[in-house]
Amino acid sequence: MNVIKVSARSRTAAVAGAIAGVIRESQRAEVQAIGAGAVNQAIKAIVIAKGYLEDEGVHVVCDPSFVEVEIDTQERTAVRIVVMPH
Amino acid sequence: MNVIKVSARSRTAAVAGAIAGVIRESQRAEVQAIGAGAVNQAIKAIVIAKGYLEDEGVHVVCDPSFVEVEIDTQERTAVRIVVMPH
Repeated sequence: MNVIKVSARSRTAAVAGAIAGVIRESQRAEVQAIGAGAVNQAIKAIVIAKGYLEDEGVHVVCDPSFVEVEIDTQERTAVRIVVMPH
Repeated sequence: MNVIKVSARSRTAAVAGAIAGVIRESQRAEVQAIGAGAVNQAIKAIVIAKGYLEDEGVHVVCDPSFVEVEIDTQERTAVRIVVMPH
């Protein structure tokens, strides 16, 4: 599955559109963020995406977890949030 | 219901313990955070609480939303995350 990577500079509306699009296509989206600014943008985008999907009768919830990812040969802890219908 | 308020300086283990305790007692916890640092601590605490509860066979998911709150007569947008069994 494609992971939607969010940074502190990501525009929430763009990320929200991506999340809603992936949910419509494959029922489940994965969002990944590293760092407080990125996690905040991710959560805001999920709330906005929830609004888009609710207008279509789709109710989603989130399942957050930690994942280790390698960036430039460095191990980092990312927050991965699975968004799925409830 | 009591809302668990999280700040950027909250210790994640303490918040996680509070979330798990409220879920055990009343099946549902509400976590509130304002600002990127606080939202990040809240999500990390929820992931840790998830681990505690999974050990007891309880699987939880999150439902985040925006809420307007008044702090020192100022209107602020908070992220409220409902944590509930799945």
